Amino acid sequence: MPTYKAPVDDVMFLLGDVFHIDRYNNLPGFAEATPDLIEAVLGEAAKFCEDVLTPLNRVGDKEGCRRHDDGSVTTPTGFKDAYRRLVEGGWIGASAPVEFGGQGLPRVLSQAIGEFLVSANMAFAMYPGLAQGAAAAIFAHGSAEQKALYLPKLISGQWAGTMNLTEPQCGTDLGLTRTRAAAQPDGSYKITGTKIFISAGEHDLTENIIHLVLARIEGAPAGTKGISLFIVPKFLPTKDGARGARNAVSCGSIEEKMGIHGNSTCVMNYDGATGWLVAEQNRGLQAMFTMMNEARLGVGVQGLALSEVAYQNAAAYAKERLAGRALTGAKFKDKPADPIIVHPDVRRMLMEIRAFNEAARALVLWTALKSDVAHRSGDAKERQAADDHMGLMTPVIKGVITDKGFANTVTAQQVFGGHGYIAEHGMEQFVRDARIAMIYEGANGIQALDLVGRKLPKDGGRALQAFFAEVSAYIKDHGADAALSPYVKPLGQALGELQQATMWFMQNALGNPDNAGAGSTDYMHLFGLVALGYMWCLIAEAANAKSAAGNGASDRMAAKLATGRFFAERMLPASALHLARIKAGAASTMALPAEAF
Amino acid sequence: MPTYKAPVDDVMFLLGDVFHIDRYNNLPGFAEATPDLIEAVLGEAAKFCEDVLTPLNRVGDKEGCRRHDDGSVTTPTGFKDAYRRLVEGGWIGASAPVEFGGQGLPRVLSQAIGEFLVSANMAFAMYPGLAQGAAAAIFAHGSAEQKALYLPKLISGQWAGTMNLTEPQCGTDLGLTRTRAAAQPDGSYKITGTKIFISAGEHDLTENIIHLVLARIEGAPAGTKGISLFIVPKFLPTKDGARGARNAVSCGSIEEKMGIHGNSTCVMNYDGATGWLVAEQNRGLQAMFTMMNEARLGVGVQGLALSEVAYQNAAAYAKERLAGRALTGAKFKDKPADPIIVHPDVRRMLMEIRAFNEAARALVLWTALKSDVAHRSGDAKERQAADDHMGLMTPVIKGVITDKGFANTVTAQQVFGGHGYIAEHGMEQFVRDARIAMIYEGANGIQALDLVGRKLPKDGGRALQAFFAEVSAYIKDHGADAALSPYVKPLGQALGELQQATMWFMQNALGNPDNAGAGSTDYMHLFGLVALGYMWCLIAEAANAKSAAGNGASDRMAAKLATGRFFAERMLPASALHLARIKAGAASTMALPAEAF
Repeated sequence: MPTYKAPVDDVMFLLGDVFHIDRYNNLPGFAEATPDLIEAVLGEAAKFCEDVLTPLNRVGDKEGCRRHDDGSVTTPTGFKDAYRRLVEGGWIGASAPVEFGGQGLPRVLSQAIGEFLVSANMAFAMYPGLAQGAAAAIFAHGSAEQKALYLPKLISGQWAGTMNLTEPQCGTDLGLTRTRAAAQPDGSYKITGTKIFISAGEHDLTENIIHLVLARIEGAPAGTKGISLFIVPKFLPTKDGARGARNAVSCGSIEEKMGIHGNSTCVMNYDGATGWLVAEQNRGLQAMFTMMNEARLGVGVQGLALSEVAYQNAAAYAKERLAGRALTGAKFKDKPADPIIVHPDVRRMLMEIRAFNEAARALVLWTALKSDVAHRSGDAKERQAADDHMGLMTPVIKGVITDKGFANTVTAQQVFGGHGYIAEHGMEQFVRDARIAMIYEGANGIQALDLVGRKLPKDGGRALQAFFAEVSAYIKDHGADAALSPYVKPLGQALGELQQATMWFMQNALGNPDNAGAGSTDYMHLFGLVALGYMWCLIAEAANAKSAAGNGASDRMAAKLATGRFFAERMLPASALHLARIKAGAASTMALPAEAF
Repeated sequence: MPTYKAPVDDVMFLLGDVFHIDRYNNLPGFAEATPDLIEAVLGEAAKFCEDVLTPLNRVGDKEGCRRHDDGSVTTPTGFKDAYRRLVEGGWIGASAPVEFGGQGLPRVLSQAIGEFLVSANMAFAMYPGLAQGAAAAIFAHGSAEQKALYLPKLISGQWAGTMNLTEPQCGTDLGLTRTRAAAQPDGSYKITGTKIFISAGEHDLTENIIHLVLARIEGAPAGTKGISLFIVPKFLPTKDGARGARNAVSCGSIEEKMGIHGNSTCVMNYDGATGWLVAEQNRGLQAMFTMMNEARLGVGVQGLALSEVAYQNAAAYAKERLAGRALTGAKFKDKPADPIIVHPDVRRMLMEIRAFNEAARALVLWTALKSDVAHRSGDAKERQAADDHMGLMTPVIKGVITDKGFANTVTAQQVFGGHGYIAEHGMEQFVRDARIAMIYEGANGIQALDLVGRKLPKDGGRALQAFFAEVSAYIKDHGADAALSPYVKPLGQALGELQQATMWFMQNALGNPDNAGAGSTDYMHLFGLVALGYMWCLIAEAANAKSAAGNGASDRMAAKLATGRFFAERMLPASALHLARIKAGAASTMALPAEAF
């Protein structure tokens, strides 16, 4: 059985020493979040994840969700009780607005806790995650009445939520949506159609489920311009907010899938179900888009979370499993063989994961802080700059962290040898669970296109220029610092390559947009390397400062400095390969006629 | 449901146009294997795989194998009938010696057919594969009596076989083997111990199963020098070769695992089971090693086979699924959207798989031809050179083709978006099945160590020098050919990097062997790139010749030339990254104390 220990220390180091969270005390909710409070909150969350959710992870995978003939769905043993405890702890609304019953804590804390939840039990964590998403949509776009009716119950966790976008014929291309909405005299709509791949679509965790559904109002324009967003509750609320009559929406079946078995992935049938419009008519996609950065950030965190828990278990196994002798001579002569952590290739695997995880966590928390600024700052310029950062970094975090996070679970499984392939060790479940994060919330190829085709040129490249300026300034300011140069110098090289790649697109993609498309995934990963390399510089700087201050954390800081060097020497140089691929252009990629495939 | 079409045309092109199989007509069995015969044999195998095995692939995954209370095991519905047809077709002994009932066809044909079988149904294909392995071991090391008793039945398929190496406390490090063998007065041994992860350990496909078991004779030296190999049949054969009494070996349980559910992966309990020594006492590991090249080549083929079938299904889906419009303007204005194959990033994914598969197939068949030479040539020097090639290329084929083959199944799954995560499309099964090939028959980290630590220095580097000389000579001879230079020039670059990496090991690994260990996986992949790049040169040369000859295959040849360019421009340049990682040395990899992980 896999184990898990939430990286509370690392989050505290990142928030305190690297990102100086105290500098954000002007934002609402931050001053209250003192270091002691943050540590206490993270510690409580860690305990819940380690003690309650981790033991249920394999149970959820084995049992899965069961749909009964009446369309009801039972979640795995223990999920209902764990959900009750999650609700009682107030975790779902930790950073939700106080006016609707939330605790108003910084979002960056929710993201940190989100990582713990997913590491412990991804399938379980999706249930509250989707409720939070539904609440965010209604908060951003709902009427005052809708907010008052739904938000308190979604934020408390009394009711759950879902997102209904995909249909059998469309996923990425939502312009092909067929679900129809017929206006009723009372201002409501009758929703009819089939939605697929609906996570948490039906379950027994809450007394009601609030579905957010994309549909086409009769007579609406074709394509993406004719799609509207609706609230469709499983049970219609009464005027006073109680649970009323059953609505005409039901789970037709549960998908049989590769992983996240503990989450019910449903085909949802809407048979003239009553719904209410959210935001304006035909502006449904725009409404979804405004929440997409947060949702995609959350999926990026899933990649990190599974990479982290897989790493922890692989490291523990490598210290325990005996096989062979160190190349430099036996290290444990009293044992029949050395533990496999003595072998350089096993180390390589562990270091690759670890060097990624620590920087990815930094990138996530940095960006979550920007999200707080974008939502809470009183300064319009600050908000805009933070929003620019979010928009630019979202596809990078979603695409890169889920791609690499998945690859890391595969690497961690490899450390176990044959035992990694056997279900009881849990490593193969991490692989199967992590796989979905590369696909949903916009497949990673879509993230790459979003980055290259939309985020780079947006507002005349303002977001990109700001990021380049920040990283360049850092390199300039710290290039002469001998202690930092092992991190800063390779970053300078990678940044130069990213800038060359950007320039190459400017010169070659206008004439032939396929040149951007064919290089988009490489560009996204090149961008990710630069962002992670920058995070390693900040971490190394903070680790040096902390070591110099001599506060007893020097072993931990020394490990960070060594891990960052591994990243700089062995991982960051992939930037040159990405640039070479980008510069190869689209010709050979697009050469074959379709029928040759 | 996934479909499959065996690449008979591609195998014919490789054997005929690229490797000129007619030049091997001096070897026994080759002259009989005329192009017409080869095409007929491949065509029959293709039909069997496409029509009989492919439909059973998902059945096997869903049903798995069931162990009953009496220790017997039932294979999935349809497997028994398919196995009967495999036996009737004489497929198991296609390239086995005629004197024991085989057909004596070239081994290269068996490997080609092996790819088809695994593409169609990997879990099924493992049953005959293990019988072939057991036959090979007895052929190489058994006494005349053992050969006469077991080979005809293993080669016909009447009996099956297994390999029993792994125990709970040891896999890679077989020196830790605990299974005991006690000598009996009649010359037999009583075998006692537990073996795990035994593929095809128990099943209902054949009337008998011949287990090959590593065990330690009482009083034998500790470690790898005290291990012997035994034949332990499920039913003891009578003197005249009939099935006799039940032996004391039984299946204790079936492992619950990530994939290959249709194959029974068993815990095997030996409770004083009767066994007979194969080869000399305490020489069991050496006996296993002599068969290891063939077995590992077979596992490499598994990586290719799943990459191929996953590619075929992804390509079909990409031509059919509609989403979005081409970046260069709508291609199918009459449809609500373009098929996704118009999108450059989808093309990139398909091209990456395809450009790998075609070269990997060439590398496999080239090496299988060397295996034929090594086993059948009358010329000792030719045999030695071929054996050198086999030894050198085996870890590369096993490690690189299974690593990339798995990654390719993941990429192919990605083309399907959300549908790739759902079981009914079969793409996620390819991922789960392909994963094991990176682990068994020596985890890929062990392949890398075998390459760097054993195969490079062996015989004063004779095998490596021969390979370098051949590729260098090719580059020299064809460097001026304008039609080939897009393939030859990048290969020259990559070869130079491989030679630099080799030199770096010579200069830095003697003093600190960790420098070789930390770079071993990168070296293996760098080697693989050069080998595959060389294959693309040979393919391009043959494709040019065939196009010039104007025999009607020019579209197919043009596609090959374009695919090879993609490889040269986008995949081969990874060589520089591998070199950079190797040259980074072991310092940052080994820096952390074990307790810091």
